[in-house]
Amino acid sequence: MTGEHSSKQYDADLETIRSKVLLMGGLVEKQFQDAIEVFRSGNVEIGERIIKDDVQVNHMEIELDNACSHLIVRRQPTANDLRTVMATIKVITDLERVGDEAAKIARIAIQLHKRGLSTINHFETVHVIADGAMDQLHNALDALARLDEKEAIQLIKHDDVIDKDFGFIMRNVITYMMEDPRTISAAMDTLWVAKAIERIGDHAKNIAEYVIYIVEGKDIRHTDYAATQIDSGA
Amino acid sequence: MTGEHSSKQYDADLETIRSKVLLMGGLVEKQFQDAIEVFRSGNVEIGERIIKDDVQVNHMEIELDNACSHLIVRRQPTANDLRTVMATIKVITDLERVGDEAAKIARIAIQLHKRGLSTINHFETVHVIADGAMDQLHNALDALARLDEKEAIQLIKHDDVIDKDFGFIMRNVITYMMEDPRTISAAMDTLWVAKAIERIGDHAKNIAEYVIYIVEGKDIRHTDYAATQIDSGA
Repeated sequence: MTGEHSSKQYDADLETIRSKVLLMGGLVEKQFQDAIEVFRSGNVEIGERIIKDDVQVNHMEIELDNACSHLIVRRQPTANDLRTVMATIKVITDLERVGDEAAKIARIAIQLHKRGLSTINHFETVHVIADGAMDQLHNALDALARLDEKEAIQLIKHDDVIDKDFGFIMRNVITYMMEDPRTISAAMDTLWVAKAIERIGDHAKNIAEYVIYIVEGKDIRHTDYAATQIDSGA
Repeated sequence: MTGEHSSKQYDADLETIRSKVLLMGGLVEKQFQDAIEVFRSGNVEIGERIIKDDVQVNHMEIELDNACSHLIVRRQPTANDLRTVMATIKVITDLERVGDEAAKIARIAIQLHKRGLSTINHFETVHVIADGAMDQLHNALDALARLDEKEAIQLIKHDDVIDKDFGFIMRNVITYMMEDPRTISAAMDTLWVAKAIERIGDHAKNIAEYVIYIVEGKDIRHTDYAATQIDSGA
């Protein structure tokens, strides 16, 4: 009976942590969306709020790490249960980094718009990759919420598209710069934004890998697991 | 007696993990040094070995994560002991990322040298920041090995220098590109290498923060703790 009681307590504690992680996920997703909006519109007010709210994201990271520690000490999970906690700890780190990248985009966007626009249409340049990364992050959080392995696998396969988009933007921006060297500073800013977006896509992929780890117990980091699963029709 | 026995076993297991983490640290430090050497010399053979050995770094990450999980399940550490394990799990992630950045530098270096050198002295451009980041990584691993809080604090304060070096390189490279647009592609490659080096500096800083967390139990992520400590003469 004690075992069952303890296991129920563990489930309840874990569910509390999971809700908070998803809350944190929702917050950084909003931060990312807003940052892209600032890059489009140059709205300094929203930009400064993103930078301010990143402090809240950082606090959430520390608080959730502590909650995971307490869970382990109090409930002494089995190997199987611990797997979920370990994966959660890694997810928290990725979410915090998404917050960092959003704040970085906001900072560059404010600076770029303050300097005045150049001949490059900055927003158009990153528009496609931003939409792609936003979908990836959204799907990763959805797969985490529903522990949906299939969605996680699909998402991992899609990461290649983000990488290709980034390569395309880089070649594009280099062409701009060569044609008109006066655009170089502004083009560089656009490129850093594209890089931050690409990294958010990477974090989404990491989260999806942890979802598969939680569901299957398979550590698929650094493998071509997703490709194999898709090919075999999973 | 059981408590003491279990605690001794815990210490022994933790020491084994710590040794392996330091071994992994030594490997990624070497990978980084070699990558900078490839960037200087264009030695394709070393470059390809770095990319190949990154697989080994990835395996170490998974193996050490598993060792930490087993330690928690078998030894059921107290809150205090668990802190060290949690920090170790985070350090492992940072070390793996250092390996990724080293492999990225190697890939760019090979590509750059295959294309033939431009008028930019690529190596000279990143020379100072590379030395700085190498010192930071070395000191972080040293602080981790000796659990030396003072060294960790010094290192965190020094991270500003790396960031300033990066800003300097960026302005420098933009000037090159404006003066001679034919150098743009090569200049961009140099900039990505500088960015990878700056990130390695960030990972060294993260590791130092975890050292302070292990020693003091204070979570100083996202604070100005280091600056305060230095000012008060600690």
